[in-house]
Amino acid sequence: MVQSGNIFASIPAQSDIEEITILAAWPGAVVERIVSMGHASPPGFWYDQDWTEWVILLQGAAALRVEGEAAPRSLRPGDYLELPPHVRHRVEWTAPDRPTVWLAVHWKGAGQGGQIAGPQFA
Amino acid sequence: MVQSGNIFASIPAQSDIEEITILAAWPGAVVERIVSMGHASPPGFWYDQDWTEWVILLQGAAALRVEGEAAPRSLRPGDYLELPPHVRHRVEWTAPDRPTVWLAVHWKGAGQGGQIAGPQFA
Repeated sequence: MVQSGNIFASIPAQSDIEEITILAAWPGAVVERIVSMGHASPPGFWYDQDWTEWVILLQGAAALRVEGEAAPRSLRPGDYLELPPHVRHRVEWTAPDRPTVWLAVHWKGAGQGGQIAGPQFA
Repeated sequence: MVQSGNIFASIPAQSDIEEITILAAWPGAVVERIVSMGHASPPGFWYDQDWTEWVILLQGAAALRVEGEAAPRSLRPGDYLELPPHVRHRVEWTAPDRPTVWLAVHWKGAGQGGQIAGPQFA
């Protein structure tokens, strides 16, 4: 009945792709683990999402670039940020020598079938 | 525009009460930091919540008791669990000598004014 686990368990020692694991899912919201191993967004690629992403780096290191900001943000364990819908961003780099573990909450608004709802987007 | 911070920043060295900080809030969902310092639920007290709570221990140590389970769950950094609405639970203990930092996501369903929505509660 109670789903549980450890976010640092079963981390792949090496991987060619980012590994995404859904830890919890409710209508309109998802909690996921992302494990990066030296991955970065392809040159010129920007994430442009329809939903709000709240993301925290728990292990490793990374740099995240938010469009319009002067420089990438260096992230160390515990650093979090909230990316509203359509705030374009990209991962400049993640640590090449050890796994970088992120926890992300994606919020779309419940029961909206993925559509953004809520007064802050009006 | 982009809200950010570090979840391990500004942790009170000592506190008589649990400290709760809202890190993000959307209609029907909240992300919060909880800092415990030796706190436990009062004897006989059980949390009985109208919402889903997904909680992860990030620093320190704790034991959480879920009603109906044979023994409390010992939690170490990275351990998470999902508590559906009205799954009664209590904090048996948290580390007495150092802060215990939790990250909690409370999910009520967006735009429902705090009421539970979603097929899994039908």
